[in-house]
Amino acid sequence: MKTVGMIVEYNPLHNGHVLHYKRSKAITDAECAVAVMSGHFLQRGEPALIGKRSRAEMALHMGADLVIELPVAYAVQPAEWFAYGAVSLLHATGVVDSLCFGSEQGSLSSLRPLAAQLAREDSGLKVEISKQLSSGISFPAAFAAAAGHVQGVSPQDAEEISLLLSRPNNSLGLHYLIALERLQSRIEPYTIPRDTAQYHDPLPAGPSIASATSIRRLILENGLGAAAPYVPDYTLHILQKAFTQGNGPFTWESFRHPLFHLLHTLNTHQLERLLEVGEGLEHRIKKILPRLNSFSVEELLTILKTKRYTRTRLQRMLMHILLHHSKEQLSRTELVRGPGYIRILGFSEKGRLLLKEMKRTATLPVVTRAAALNHPQLDLDLQASAVYAAASGQPQMSLMYEDYRLPPVKI
Amino acid sequence: MKTVGMIVEYNPLHNGHVLHYKRSKAITDAECAVAVMSGHFLQRGEPALIGKRSRAEMALHMGADLVIELPVAYAVQPAEWFAYGAVSLLHATGVVDSLCFGSEQGSLSSLRPLAAQLAREDSGLKVEISKQLSSGISFPAAFAAAAGHVQGVSPQDAEEISLLLSRPNNSLGLHYLIALERLQSRIEPYTIPRDTAQYHDPLPAGPSIASATSIRRLILENGLGAAAPYVPDYTLHILQKAFTQGNGPFTWESFRHPLFHLLHTLNTHQLERLLEVGEGLEHRIKKILPRLNSFSVEELLTILKTKRYTRTRLQRMLMHILLHHSKEQLSRTELVRGPGYIRILGFSEKGRLLLKEMKRTATLPVVTRAAALNHPQLDLDLQASAVYAAASGQPQMSLMYEDYRLPPVKI
Repeated sequence: MKTVGMIVEYNPLHNGHVLHYKRSKAITDAECAVAVMSGHFLQRGEPALIGKRSRAEMALHMGADLVIELPVAYAVQPAEWFAYGAVSLLHATGVVDSLCFGSEQGSLSSLRPLAAQLAREDSGLKVEISKQLSSGISFPAAFAAAAGHVQGVSPQDAEEISLLLSRPNNSLGLHYLIALERLQSRIEPYTIPRDTAQYHDPLPAGPSIASATSIRRLILENGLGAAAPYVPDYTLHILQKAFTQGNGPFTWESFRHPLFHLLHTLNTHQLERLLEVGEGLEHRIKKILPRLNSFSVEELLTILKTKRYTRTRLQRMLMHILLHHSKEQLSRTELVRGPGYIRILGFSEKGRLLLKEMKRTATLPVVTRAAALNHPQLDLDLQASAVYAAASGQPQMSLMYEDYRLPPVKI
Repeated sequence: MKTVGMIVEYNPLHNGHVLHYKRSKAITDAECAVAVMSGHFLQRGEPALIGKRSRAEMALHMGADLVIELPVAYAVQPAEWFAYGAVSLLHATGVVDSLCFGSEQGSLSSLRPLAAQLAREDSGLKVEISKQLSSGISFPAAFAAAAGHVQGVSPQDAEEISLLLSRPNNSLGLHYLIALERLQSRIEPYTIPRDTAQYHDPLPAGPSIASATSIRRLILENGLGAAAPYVPDYTLHILQKAFTQGNGPFTWESFRHPLFHLLHTLNTHQLERLLEVGEGLEHRIKKILPRLNSFSVEELLTILKTKRYTRTRLQRMLMHILLHHSKEQLSRTELVRGPGYIRILGFSEKGRLLLKEMKRTATLPVVTRAAALNHPQLDLDLQASAVYAAASGQPQMSLMYEDYRLPPVKI
């Protein structure tokens, strides 16, 4: 069965995602679709509006056949590692033929040659970008800074590519392509233009398509009903059910108690051991805390933000503090090994056949029950689940550890 | 002015405490009384029912002239360190002439010679007890185990002393005496028999005196009114005011959110770096978490408890996890230095004169505004205040850091 891979967050799944799914299958002529999806915590350092099982259910309703969890070790990371983790998983299934992603560019013509160059370990540009990245700046900024130092990139090219990479989905797409190159994967990349709603659009852009960001805002500000025009019925229904049980909508404020507790009790040395904390940010946090007016993560982020540190960078840092991800646990050496397992969050009838096929083809252990495998990345996923469940309106111990026991979602 | 020192928790201040205060002044013929009081977290690893400022206010209403905070570094510790910290503070004021403590024994005749022996660094008994203590057992148990190994302690003596030390206030008293010896302090010790309510009595023992434990239980189970017969009016009034503002009554369950968050997210290596975590307890905790039925510290403690680990020992361990006290921060080497400052929580008119006198006599910095001093122990105190304030019904950022700014309580 021809199978297309997608890399998603579905926070929540909306009409734009359905469109992408349909076009992806059409353009690749695929019978099956595999989605690699982040768990409870997302790439920009935010909690998902509702939990991963509910979002996997949405994906299955849409038509996805297999939903694989991107370990939190890769899910809450800059584009480079996020893409590397997700593409590695698609590659490791052994059943995925193509990868289709949305991009502002809508074509691979400029991205592909750049990816080929950047995937070579000995590329001068790559080395220079790595150097720039280590100071904590974003990839597009690192590219812009690096391009000037490297022979063979004309100022004109550099500017054009910088502009290209300034669009978030182009940048992610580039990293998918780099990851495919590095893995020497036979997965064929495709891209589809994101033409209807820009990622950062704050307001609905049309009658039926809106960005996930604006849909979340509608839900938080005006209630679930306000999202109805922009999401499929099953999304509404699944959100409704979760909210009724006190499981969402989760925002950063849902985690303010444990987050501030950690910020109060960890000293600067202890903070500095955690991922993405450094360069004096630990001192800045400690200095800001007594000056906050409200018990609010939002205010903390607003005051922490500088030109140098984007909100995304700071949110990810706070997420690593919340989840106690140390620099040691998620070092480059650890991450470069890639995900250690393929955790199945959900599957359809056709997905069951894919799983059967994967018994033969998969190059990583396929995990349908977390209790069956011991892996440090899986420990982090289970910890993240406990943290997420504890933020529920009515926290229950059994729910905090259900991720150990529950089988994948089937529909 | 002749001044008596008392070492207290006042959780809450009750009629028995008033009696002790009056008798202490009478027996020592003192004009002034100085109380060293634990802050928000107490010796047996529990949060105080209400905050330290409210309890300092009670002490001043009773008649105490100066209330000094015992740093949390010493307050949440076995009797040895608790006593060493508290006595060091009384000694360091330079204005305290006597120390009067309650004991079941009611006399110093057996305790004093034992203290003299145990204060000598080269005492075989002391060395043997230290060895036993390092395995994590309580002092009375360590004494019992050590006595058998040491020449010069007859089995009869050993049994008698073991029995003596099995009473908690005798054991604390012994450590006050040892601390006085070690500091070569001129402070004269006195003891008063605790004859009315035993510490562990679960129910009120008489018409007007009840143990703090039973008073707390009455308040938590039957409301504040139930405590009225056993506490002075100002205690009732201060409790009432705090509870109305959502500041208490605090129990371990008030801290279950941050505690469980830490237990979820710290791995066994990270847990083991914290004080009193070790000997496999970190693995036991991790194994028990998924099996808990309720989101409750009480259930966790019940399941954790074994013959070897008393509830007090386990509560203290959980408190060090909650407050992120590392073994490194509170090592023996650090603790043996003693408290680094005299933090004033409250004073009366006569207390003001004592403070004036202390400008000349005190051997440690006297702190009336926390912002004025930098000290790692003070950092821990301020962190503890933030954690305590965050557990309030309506957490406010300004209250979490008020301990930096507020002057002592005056009445």
